[in-house]
Amino acid sequence: MKEFDTIAAVATALGEGGISIIRISGNKSLDIVSKIFRGKSNLSILEMKPYTMRYGNIVDSKQEIVDEVIISYMKGPKSFTAEDTVEINCHGGVTSTNRVLQEVIKSGARLAEPGEFTKRAFLNGRIDLTQAEAVIDIIRAKTDLSMKSAMIQSQGLLSREINSLREKLLNVLALIEFAVDFTEDDEEPDATIPIRVGENLQLVINEVDRLLSSADEGKIIREGLSMVIVGKPNVGKSSLLNTLLREKRAIVTNIPGTTRDVIEEYINLDGIPIRIIDTAGIRETEDEVERIGVQRSKEKIDEADIIVFMVDASRGLDSEDREILDFIKDKKYITLCNKIDLDKNIEANDLDVLSNSIEVSTVTGYGIDSLKDKIKDMFFKGHIDSESVIITNTRHKQALYRAKENCEVALNQVRNNEYLDLISIYVTTGLRALGEITGSELEEDLVNKIFSDFCVGK
Amino acid sequence: MKEFDTIAAVATALGEGGISIIRISGNKSLDIVSKIFRGKSNLSILEMKPYTMRYGNIVDSKQEIVDEVIISYMKGPKSFTAEDTVEINCHGGVTSTNRVLQEVIKSGARLAEPGEFTKRAFLNGRIDLTQAEAVIDIIRAKTDLSMKSAMIQSQGLLSREINSLREKLLNVLALIEFAVDFTEDDEEPDATIPIRVGENLQLVINEVDRLLSSADEGKIIREGLSMVIVGKPNVGKSSLLNTLLREKRAIVTNIPGTTRDVIEEYINLDGIPIRIIDTAGIRETEDEVERIGVQRSKEKIDEADIIVFMVDASRGLDSEDREILDFIKDKKYITLCNKIDLDKNIEANDLDVLSNSIEVSTVTGYGIDSLKDKIKDMFFKGHIDSESVIITNTRHKQALYRAKENCEVALNQVRNNEYLDLISIYVTTGLRALGEITGSELEEDLVNKIFSDFCVGK
Repeated sequence: MKEFDTIAAVATALGEGGISIIRISGNKSLDIVSKIFRGKSNLSILEMKPYTMRYGNIVDSKQEIVDEVIISYMKGPKSFTAEDTVEINCHGGVTSTNRVLQEVIKSGARLAEPGEFTKRAFLNGRIDLTQAEAVIDIIRAKTDLSMKSAMIQSQGLLSREINSLREKLLNVLALIEFAVDFTEDDEEPDATIPIRVGENLQLVINEVDRLLSSADEGKIIREGLSMVIVGKPNVGKSSLLNTLLREKRAIVTNIPGTTRDVIEEYINLDGIPIRIIDTAGIRETEDEVERIGVQRSKEKIDEADIIVFMVDASRGLDSEDREILDFIKDKKYITLCNKIDLDKNIEANDLDVLSNSIEVSTVTGYGIDSLKDKIKDMFFKGHIDSESVIITNTRHKQALYRAKENCEVALNQVRNNEYLDLISIYVTTGLRALGEITGSELEEDLVNKIFSDFCVGK
Repeated sequence: MKEFDTIAAVATALGEGGISIIRISGNKSLDIVSKIFRGKSNLSILEMKPYTMRYGNIVDSKQEIVDEVIISYMKGPKSFTAEDTVEINCHGGVTSTNRVLQEVIKSGARLAEPGEFTKRAFLNGRIDLTQAEAVIDIIRAKTDLSMKSAMIQSQGLLSREINSLREKLLNVLALIEFAVDFTEDDEEPDATIPIRVGENLQLVINEVDRLLSSADEGKIIREGLSMVIVGKPNVGKSSLLNTLLREKRAIVTNIPGTTRDVIEEYINLDGIPIRIIDTAGIRETEDEVERIGVQRSKEKIDEADIIVFMVDASRGLDSEDREILDFIKDKKYITLCNKIDLDKNIEANDLDVLSNSIEVSTVTGYGIDSLKDKIKDMFFKGHIDSESVIITNTRHKQALYRAKENCEVALNQVRNNEYLDLISIYVTTGLRALGEITGSELEEDLVNKIFSDFCVGK
């Protein structure tokens, strides 16, 4: 195990709750906590058995009680960080939590950086990089489906597949080395070696392709889709939003991000988290303030993954509808023909706009399921497979692409009967790309960048 | 110990964090968790020793892994609720936490009501009502000072004083009974008894008075003051706010309330939490929308504990200033003469308005300390005593008043040589009022009302 200093941070979400946890990790964690903990039993916690707890108080330098706590002790390597870890369960609430943390810092711990606990688990070899990344994905998961794919990754299933691919490429390199050694000894090389090298490379390419085929859907499962609802006033935009929200109210949650100001509203579409983006409207206007709002709406439309364009069947189409349509027509959009429960007022020359539209009524709920199916069809090829490994992370996807490209170059050269030792450079590069995924080959800067995305306390 | 069903709730604040805790309390807690927990060691948790932990997974009914967890077990009565308690530490984050909670509920626990864990600690006799109320005060404490007074209360110091007063009143009742017995036996009663009854009552009244004398300050320590800053445009209102906020930035926190939408901004004035209330302005206006804003501002001013009225020394006073002053003049307000770093432009007939004003410069920081001292002087008599018991809770204050009133009536009747047995009714009522504070005498409805103010999970 590497030598690190001892770090501390609040490990629970900040806010009003019954309990908060302050986590301390490092060689000195028990030592540091022993200075500020007064147990009811008067026994020193330095003799505490791993995986046990003690009840008592945290006291300050004047021996005044700061808070009533329970501490627990996990001895490394059997802890989250694989280091000696003490957790202090104190009263929830901002002041109590911060006061206990302050005392821990005063006794010699350093405030942990974002993601530093998980980084230590990685650097200490308890988990690999895909597992470390899965930790934050689990925490940020917005639906059961995204949670499940993160759990599969956290259990090391992706790493296992990547390692088996690396194994195959190492075999390829061994074969090449074997053949090159023969050549240097002026012996006749085994004629089957290029064939076996080619076969192995093809196998790896196929496997990488299989993994990559899940990447588009995987990204959506992890990050969700962003959706904008557009349409002229009174067409039923907020009514649609309410219908979508109401149905899933039980599992829809306002998830406060790392910046506390931003509260995003998600709906859960059969496991796909869909973030609803509010827009002001996109009408041309002379009013300066309104124009800024319109500009922002247009930017949001550009960023959205999907646009729901609503028209009013009872009023028919007018120039305003066509103006909106003109603006979104190059984006991925679905046309909704709302208020189908009322008398229709659609003219013949509107039918081009409505040819692919879905008829809905946000009042009766008619057509809402068709809308959902349409969205799923647009982004998912058939059934969403939640049982196997899915590539959810863009970093993994990019590394897989690089691995694949290099294997393909190598395969082509084998087929063109190039010298095998010229091929090994591509195989090695492909091997390294795969190693970046699990973190077995990765620069320190990149590792730091990955963990800086985490929240403090994890 | 009373028999209850087994309850569960998320005990940590909801949001994005490294860890969440699901707390399960009741006879069946270990049993319920054993159905969904798969330890790495394959040992049944039913044989777990109290105050130890186990690492493993929570699984659903299909034996699929829901989350990786650590469970801890505290056997009653040595637990927060005094019942058998299991805590599941799972990944923080809304989805993971809710999924684990769902599995716990499916295995037979009931979702806890707000405050139900603390209520059980009270009903099981582990803590009294003042200590239970202190739990929520600790969690909601906004400054170190409010935290400290809540900690003192949670340690039972208030209860000790109340119980000693009850003891004295019980003595009074015993004396009265003794005297009445004598009278019934036609013997000569002890002539000193009315004197001793009077002395004891006076002692109780004095002690209650002493406690009540801390109640106004105590309320502020617990609940904080609400402050509105008023003044015409460009007088430096936001500049003052920033100065006050910046100084204490390290300990100022946005505390999300139980309703997630409301984020209140607090400043910490030497331990006194001061909530800043934003107002739009209070100018008379013809504009309908603006008028609603002004109406709201006026309501906020009416609710505020203190108003800071700012004028601009460099511009001098005008009708707008006087209009504002006219509106707030019957409230508790402080006049701030800002921009004292610029050339003064005050006329002689403005001096009445400014006679008690504090000269400040929000640019240089001049005078800010005087403002703070002034606020403290207005609400605190001298030094804030944070070492002894403070009455912070209005419920306690009201009960103390009732105790005092009844003791005073009794004392008067003793002094008027009324029959002692007529006095006992008042003493008993006073005794009951004191008992309401610690909860030894309290109706079930009232107990329920007190705990319903708590957050879920506590």
